[in-house]
Amino acid sequence: MIPIHRIRRRQWLGATALGAALSACKQNAPVADEGPRLLGATVRPYGERSEFETAKRLLANDRYLEESQTRTPLGESVGILTPSSLHYERHHSGVPRIDPAQHRLLIHGLVDRPLVFTVEDIRRLPSVSRIYFLECSGNSGSEWGARPAATAQQSHGLASCSEWTGVPLSLLLAEAGIQKSAQWLIAEGADACKMVRSLPVSKGMDDVLVAWGQNGEPLRPEQGYPLRLFVPGWEGNVNVKWLRRIEASDQPAMARDETSKYTDLMPDGTARIFTFIMEAKSLVTYPSGGDKLKPGFCEISGLAWSGRGLIRRVEVSTDAGRTWKDASLQEPRLPRAFTRFRLPWNWDGSEAQLQSRCTDETGYVQPSNQQLTVLRGLASTYHYNGIKAWKVAADGSVTHV
Amino acid sequence: MIPIHRIRRRQWLGATALGAALSACKQNAPVADEGPRLLGATVRPYGERSEFETAKRLLANDRYLEESQTRTPLGESVGILTPSSLHYERHHSGVPRIDPAQHRLLIHGLVDRPLVFTVEDIRRLPSVSRIYFLECSGNSGSEWGARPAATAQQSHGLASCSEWTGVPLSLLLAEAGIQKSAQWLIAEGADACKMVRSLPVSKGMDDVLVAWGQNGEPLRPEQGYPLRLFVPGWEGNVNVKWLRRIEASDQPAMARDETSKYTDLMPDGTARIFTFIMEAKSLVTYPSGGDKLKPGFCEISGLAWSGRGLIRRVEVSTDAGRTWKDASLQEPRLPRAFTRFRLPWNWDGSEAQLQSRCTDETGYVQPSNQQLTVLRGLASTYHYNGIKAWKVAADGSVTHV
Repeated sequence: MIPIHRIRRRQWLGATALGAALSACKQNAPVADEGPRLLGATVRPYGERSEFETAKRLLANDRYLEESQTRTPLGESVGILTPSSLHYERHHSGVPRIDPAQHRLLIHGLVDRPLVFTVEDIRRLPSVSRIYFLECSGNSGSEWGARPAATAQQSHGLASCSEWTGVPLSLLLAEAGIQKSAQWLIAEGADACKMVRSLPVSKGMDDVLVAWGQNGEPLRPEQGYPLRLFVPGWEGNVNVKWLRRIEASDQPAMARDETSKYTDLMPDGTARIFTFIMEAKSLVTYPSGGDKLKPGFCEISGLAWSGRGLIRRVEVSTDAGRTWKDASLQEPRLPRAFTRFRLPWNWDGSEAQLQSRCTDETGYVQPSNQQLTVLRGLASTYHYNGIKAWKVAADGSVTHV
Repeated sequence: MIPIHRIRRRQWLGATALGAALSACKQNAPVADEGPRLLGATVRPYGERSEFETAKRLLANDRYLEESQTRTPLGESVGILTPSSLHYERHHSGVPRIDPAQHRLLIHGLVDRPLVFTVEDIRRLPSVSRIYFLECSGNSGSEWGARPAATAQQSHGLASCSEWTGVPLSLLLAEAGIQKSAQWLIAEGADACKMVRSLPVSKGMDDVLVAWGQNGEPLRPEQGYPLRLFVPGWEGNVNVKWLRRIEASDQPAMARDETSKYTDLMPDGTARIFTFIMEAKSLVTYPSGGDKLKPGFCEISGLAWSGRGLIRRVEVSTDAGRTWKDASLQEPRLPRAFTRFRLPWNWDGSEAQLQSRCTDETGYVQPSNQQLTVLRGLASTYHYNGIKAWKVAADGSVTHV
């Protein structure tokens, strides 16, 4: 038996900023005496999470679950990585079942030497691993409208962060002998809809990967198994999954998903096209919509990211944007990865409004909803990156503003 | 249909160092024409890996699966992270089933204010996330003997790397008012064997975490759900799982697992005790035992780590240690985390012997088996960190030396 000391409450309660957070220690409650302990479960070849943990991806209320999406539970996120099982999904014709022994990648078009690769070829070529976020350009699109989403998962859950491993596309293009006249790369997936997206050769020769690994294992099926394009910092849709073909061309494909979709309708009725980069964005993940606070100490925490590189600064306001404090940024900060920020706060039990605002290494500052709307109008679906606000009511309930 | 260009083999094959690796492209094999494509699988709330991926933890051939271990498949490792489902296990009385709502952590002994924490308390206190390796001090113990293990998983699979999230123990000890007379912290788990280990207060006030998160989600059950001690760079056993109690004391507990076990028998018959730090170690993971090489290009790849901080250098030999080349180290290198190293190699088809040798930021160089044996003798079980060698036979088969 374990000797349980009496807890001398008055000596310490409230002595520090953490006093209230530690109020659960106020009881003289002993550590549960569970009696004789039973032998636990055996080792096993492949583990699973605890039966007490039930976080799950949020399914849109769609009629067709093959042309649909699921959202990462960012309100329950821990650290900067997203478990692969909870990485957001966006499919246009379902997840194809691909035998890696049968799959091939073709590189052709304006190249001197068209090449066909097996998956085993790709896995044995020189590769790199990098921690990067991935975000659908439709993420937080709900925030354009009059009824912003109620939770962090609903509003911002089309963003996740993983360690991605792959072969630099520049290496494959150099091997194929890409020609000077090639200005665009047209990538095609092996899904039923033949997802096609175009990206400039300049990006392809920079940091793009033909990725085959995710978080220490091969890609998950819903992330493009066995091969996907990974285009750091660029909108999710151009990171073509189940990659089977890259054609070098002197012009873009002007495919469905870069003309009628994934373009931005501007206030003057024109549409922006090929708006690839995901601009700087941040979100308070705790407390966020659906949480319930108790007065006293609270560590405000959240995530920030930028398609242009490093997050340099995150400011947090608890008074609806009147005053701001610098949050601490967790190291190591990595370019084009989630950055975790934290700010200690003593909630006094009165109504509060929480916001976060990030600045990236280019000096770009995340705009307010109003600033964004002035520039972009209200007709857009994609590339919303305005500040999100959470209201803390006097009873501790947290809701969207 | 996709136009398949003829591949003009002679123009490019062997033109570069990668030529041989790309030899699979030598066929004029078209990209498989799979006919009309079918709608794929639907989105789902919690994902699983592909049915074609079967990596699993290796179970020791033990009679009692509650007092046993499983090993991470390092030969199939990707990047620096280990999927939580494949993180190595070492249990002394099985994995207890713990309801986090019922679990408590007690801090007591030589403290001014004994404290009891709920799991929810811990999760809401200021926390940090860090990518760290974890390694059983018995890892690669097979290499002491005359019959070293045949694969990377068998020899070195009691090491894994995750992002760990937790509350700095220093914060909890400060809140409890740890007294000057306290020199040791005695940690106890909630498993049936009441695992007890002692560690110096100085380490506890440095970088130790009361961890509750792993790779973006709550700890896995076999990693100590809902709370474990995480002691960066120190042998796995002291990272007490299912943590329920920390007692501040003026002396260590001298518990079973720090006296009769987890000590190092020296050549003179004495035993080293409290040898916590895991010294620098490295391993070639590809190619490694069980792999089969084809002549030509091969990216040699492996992992290095040190309980004392950063890996500064990894050298690789392909000729049984006669000559060494510096491998490239993947950035960002993180202290007390796996570091991935890579070296391009053209295997000419003759017999070869691969070794890796790392140096950490203290200047410590990983020893050869012979160097280690001179110092430590052959009676030890724990803390083997000698160089591991793989033989590549003329037929491409890779075996331990």
